[in-house]
Order: sequence, then C-alpha cells, then structure tokens
Amino acid sequence: MSRDKILLTPGPLTTTLRTKLAMLNDWGSWDEDFKQITANLRQSLLKIIKNDGNYTVIPMQGSGTFSVEAAIGTVVPKNGHLLVLDNGAYCKRMATISQKLGRETTTLSFSESEKVNVELVKKALNENPNITHIGLIHCETGTGIINTLQEISNLCQEAGVGLIIDAMSSFGAYPIEVTSLQFDALIAASGKCLEGVPGMGFVFLRQAIIESCVNNSPSISLDLYDQYHYMEKTGQWRFTPPTHVVVALYEAILQFFEEGGQPARLARYQQNSQVLLKGMKALGIEPFLNEADLSAIIITFLAPNSAQYEFKTLYDVAKKEGFMLYPGKLTEVETFRVGSIGAISELEMRQAVNAIAYALEKMNL
Amino acid sequence: MSRDKILLTPGPLTTTLRTKLAMLNDWGSWDEDFKQITANLRQSLLKIIKNDGNYTVIPMQGSGTFSVEAAIGTVVPKNGHLLVLDNGAYCKRMATISQKLGRETTTLSFSESEKVNVELVKKALNENPNITHIGLIHCETGTGIINTLQEISNLCQEAGVGLIIDAMSSFGAYPIEVTSLQFDALIAASGKCLEGVPGMGFVFLRQAIIESCVNNSPSISLDLYDQYHYMEKTGQWRFTPPTHVVVALYEAILQFFEEGGQPARLARYQQNSQVLLKGMKALGIEPFLNEADLSAIIITFLAPNSAQYEFKTLYDVAKKEGFMLYPGKLTEVETFRVGSIGAISELEMRQAVNAIAYALEKMNL
Repeated sequence: MSRDKILLTPGPLTTTLRTKLAMLNDWGSWDEDFKQITANLRQSLLKIIKNDGNYTVIPMQGSGTFSVEAAIGTVVPKNGHLLVLDNGAYCKRMATISQKLGRETTTLSFSESEKVNVELVKKALNENPNITHIGLIHCETGTGIINTLQEISNLCQEAGVGLIIDAMSSFGAYPIEVTSLQFDALIAASGKCLEGVPGMGFVFLRQAIIESCVNNSPSISLDLYDQYHYMEKTGQWRFTPPTHVVVALYEAILQFFEEGGQPARLARYQQNSQVLLKGMKALGIEPFLNEADLSAIIITFLAPNSAQYEFKTLYDVAKKEGFMLYPGKLTEVETFRVGSIGAISELEMRQAVNAIAYALEKMNL
Repeated sequence: MSRDKILLTPGPLTTTLRTKLAMLNDWGSWDEDFKQITANLRQSLLKIIKNDGNYTVIPMQGSGTFSVEAAIGTVVPKNGHLLVLDNGAYCKRMATISQKLGRETTTLSFSESEKVNVELVKKALNENPNITHIGLIHCETGTGIINTLQEISNLCQEAGVGLIIDAMSSFGAYPIEVTSLQFDALIAASGKCLEGVPGMGFVFLRQAIIESCVNNSPSISLDLYDQYHYMEKTGQWRFTPPTHVVVALYEAILQFFEEGGQPARLARYQQNSQVLLKGMKALGIEPFLNEADLSAIIITFLAPNSAQYEFKTLYDVAKKEGFMLYPGKLTEVETFRVGSIGAISELEMRQAVNAIAYALEKMNL
C-alpha cells in the first residue's frame, strides 16, 4: 500500500535501494574516511568526462541552481559580459542569475521548439565584441530539447570567449567528454542522471582559468575558487557538506559504472523514452517537439485538445496508479511532461503509459 | 567491526536509526505529499520557538553557513551597517560574509574566553549611530561559550536596531522563545541539536520586517524573501530541495517532541556534558573556559602540557575505540574539543572518556 511512487520527472527521481541504503551511516565531515569519499567522488566524476588532466571538479552544497549561480559568480569577472542562449525556462533563469550577480547579461532568444542556432550565435558574437562568456543549457528541461555542445564549444574557442554549460539534466546520460569538448565551467547535480539523491551540485572547471577567478565571487558560500583551494589543501569541504547525500551520490556512481557508464545509461533512457513515445502516440498524445529533437531525458506532450481534459485529474489518477508525472512549463500551449530518467526501465514506462491511458479513460477521452 | 563511530562534534552528529531510515523513500518535490512535509516541518519549527504569530520560518538548501549568508543578505539592506559581536571563529566568519556582501561591517571584539559584554555593546551603539543591525552568535562553537541573548535583544529593541542571531549550535537545546525574545532573523541548521542529517538550514524571520527585505539580496539562490513568498504561494521550495534531508529532519523533530522538547534535550546534553567534564578532570584535563561559562554543546579542553602529547594520536586512538573527537580552533593555545550533542547519552560519554584515557596511556601521559 505504501510502495514508493515512480518519479517520471527530471529530478528528484527514483533511486535504487542500494543508493538510499548508503545513507544509513553518519560521517564526520573532517575525518579521513569522509575525505576519502570526497576524493573518490571527484575522481569518478572526472573519469566520466574522460579528464585529460586539464579539468577539475568542485562539489557544492545546495540545489543545482546554487551551482549555476556559483559557476557564473566565480567564472565571469565583475566586468565580464555573459551571452545567454535562450530556448527555454532554465535559460531564462540563468540570465536572471547573471543579472542579479551584477554581470552584464545579454539574452539571445530562440523558439522554445528549436535548438540554439549556431549561425545566429556567431552573428551575435560579431556584433557584441565585448561578450566574454556564453551560457548554454545542454538539455533545456522546460521542453526536453538537447542543444548542440560541440559546435558552440568550437565557436567559443575560435572567438576566444569562455563557455559555461548547464548540463544539469543531461550529465551522465549524454556524452560530455573533454577529449573533444572545451568549456570553462560545466554544471550538474546529484539528483539527476547519475541517480543520486538531491542536495548537492558539482562544477567542472578548466584548470587554466581557475587562478583568474580569484575574488570574482560576490558570495562566501558560493565561491568555487575558495571551495577548490580549500578542498585541494585540506581534502575537506569549506562548510559542512551534506554527508549522507555525498555518500549516496558516490554509491550511485559506482552503480553507474557497473551498468556500463554513460553509453549504457543513455541506451536505457532511450529505450524508456521510445516505449513512452510509442505508447503515448498510440493513445493519440503527441510530443510538443519534432521527433528528431526529442531527448531521452524528458518529453513534453501536448495536452489532449478537449474540454474534458484536466491536468490535475491526469496527475491524480496516474499518482494513485503509482506514477508521478510533471506539469508543463510552457506558457503558450497546454502541455505536460514525462521523464524517462532514474532507476527505472521500459517495464515502468509501459506501466506508466497504462496508468495514463486509465486516467484518460476516466476523463472520457 | 563496521559499527558507526560516535561523533563527538558540533555536527554532523550521530543520528538515530529512525531518522536515517526516513531517507529510504524518494519524494517528488512538487507533489502534495512532500509539500505537506515541508508545511509540517515549518509548523514544528515554529512550535519550538513558541511562535505567537509574529514569526515565520524559511528553510534553505545548503549548509548552515549558506543560511547565515542568506539571512544577512536578505535582512540587512544595501545601505545597512552590521555590528558583529566577536568572541570566536564563527563571529569572524559572520563578519567576513557581511563584508563580502558589501554591507558596512564593524566588528566589536571580545576575548574568546569571555561572553559578549553588553555594556560595551551599548557603548558601541552610542558611538556608531548609523549601525542598523547587530550580529550575534548564540553558542560560539570555536570555544563552546554561550552568549546572552535576552540582554542583547532588549538592547536592540531600546536602540531600534535589528538583531540577527546565529543559533546554529544551540537551537533545540537552549531555550529560544519569542514570548520573551525579539529578533529580526535567527539561523539554525538540520544537522545540529535537532539531530537531523546535514544539508539544509532554516531562518526564522520576524513577519514585521519581511516586506522591507524585498530586493535586498544580491543572490537568487540565497534570497529568503523570494524563498518565503514562493513557498507561501505554492507550498514548494523555489529550487530542488534536498528531499531526503528534509524528511529526515522532520522525523528527527518528531523524536525531539517525543523526548520532551527543548528542556528534555538540554537535560540530556547537560548530563552528557557533566559526565564528560568530570571524567576529563579526573584524567587531569581541564576545560579552556571557566566552568561557569561552559555549555552543554561542546567543551574545549586544554591539551596536556607535555612533549609526548600529539592530537593526531589522541584522535586516531579514540577513533579506533569508536569515538570521533574534534580539533581545537584556537590560535594561541593548544586545545581539542569534545561535543556532547547528538543521539547519545551519558553511557557514550563514559565510554568516550575511557577511550581518551586509553589514548593518553598510549602516549605515556
């Protein structure tokens, strides 16, 4: 009766029992045993991006948004100028954070239904020679669209502009490897495709830029430069870490590698996503994006065009059946979202489609 | 062999198995069930301070320090002036945070071995009429000393000055009740005397000041004004909450009330602290503070005055015996610290004293 609901959302998501069981110990955060876990965690994160020695990773307390704010505040200097490539809600949030931090911020807007257009970015850089950094969301969770990383990274290198990537919803599932890609900062969090529990983020920083970041941050808590140097020197976090969350993330990453790493994780999520899409289309529910632009992370579906449809009913019935859906985040068209990530497989996706079918039936749709 | 060590520290601390078991579920952070937990958590925190309707409480992701920064950034206006009463390391950190936030900051320093002197605070206020807020640490964990709240609160009210209290290490153990006390903001965290796991803080704010706090914060993530209004409106956290930490804290607070609330918790910690003090004195180890100034939270002990003494050996032997001690934080005199808080009783304190005795013996002391 009290079985956990399956979370079909972009995080928090369903984690394995093994990951949660790792939280049944208490740790002293300054002790060697915990320092070792922090070191192992950082090492394993760097392994995921195939670090060649040019990058480091810095964990940060708080939600993923805290890490986005930490990255912008630490990497973009006070007289810097951030160009945010905007095709969705999380892009807009990045721009708001940058403005609040007092950084000159320009937003280049695209349609929410389309990927960032590299030619227009190139044009914007030419027209604004004082732009110092580009901010890009890899998987814009508002719609689920995946933006191109490599071309934007190439463009930034050609133009001598820094690149800050919010890879919150894609990291661990989509390939992000510094053997080909270059960025100044890349942000992700514990409770996403690595399938940990929420409570911390982490930021990959390019070693070459770190020393130029001293005193950039207007915050003590969110200063990645200080967090980095303190951690390198002592092995500890500057301020109390969420010990149980850290240990759970490390346990989740062990399972990530056991599963086969990023290729295996993407394959599972793609399988989930395909089962979902096929099932929904059979119910007459179509995705908001073109199929070619769909990600394996989350799909935004157009709500049935009927007066009998109500998201609340869909949500409540699906929840009773054991599945938590996610509301839409678009302003112009009614949608809802279904995630494919977490410790779930195609089995759960088939059951979820059945639960949605049952809900539609209840609404006489 | 793999029994958890007992953490004799000011947090993270030893929690009950029941608290940790609460983390074995995954929660959707936007779902009604989780919103209800957030509401219950806030309600129970307000019950602890005997809220008369004049206060609210706002949870915040991250470590306790994040909440201190959030409180100063939100409550002290851009043209405000914070007077930090300094008798230890955490006072100095508060002043650093305030300076980094760009707030005019004055530090009034006292000896680390003495409580804040109210007469000198009064004098400082008279000499600096543009001071708008006072910052006070309730239990300065650097030494363990407890500063007087009521007299400083009275003084602030008389002088028309705001009061920000860092009650991180005292909240839940020492009485903090708004039936007598007035403050603008009071900060504490999950992994302290409420015996939750680390990963979130919370800030009590006086309702009367909230609307004056709009746009004070230079941060999106750490803006308590926005967090408050969003939470009041939607029941949700603005950004992903550390769901497992939140649920564990609520489970810990249920046990707090079952134990008898603050008076019972203080009584247990005082008993722990007395057993510790008596045992240590029998070993010839004296506290750094006058006995009248000792708190039931943590005691700073003077290291044995001998060339054979080494903190590392003390720490390592005590750890092998099952007890995690805490290093000293004073610069002028060699000390170490032993906490009395967490889900432990006088039994563990007796065992800890025996472990310390065994370590001293190993050093031929």
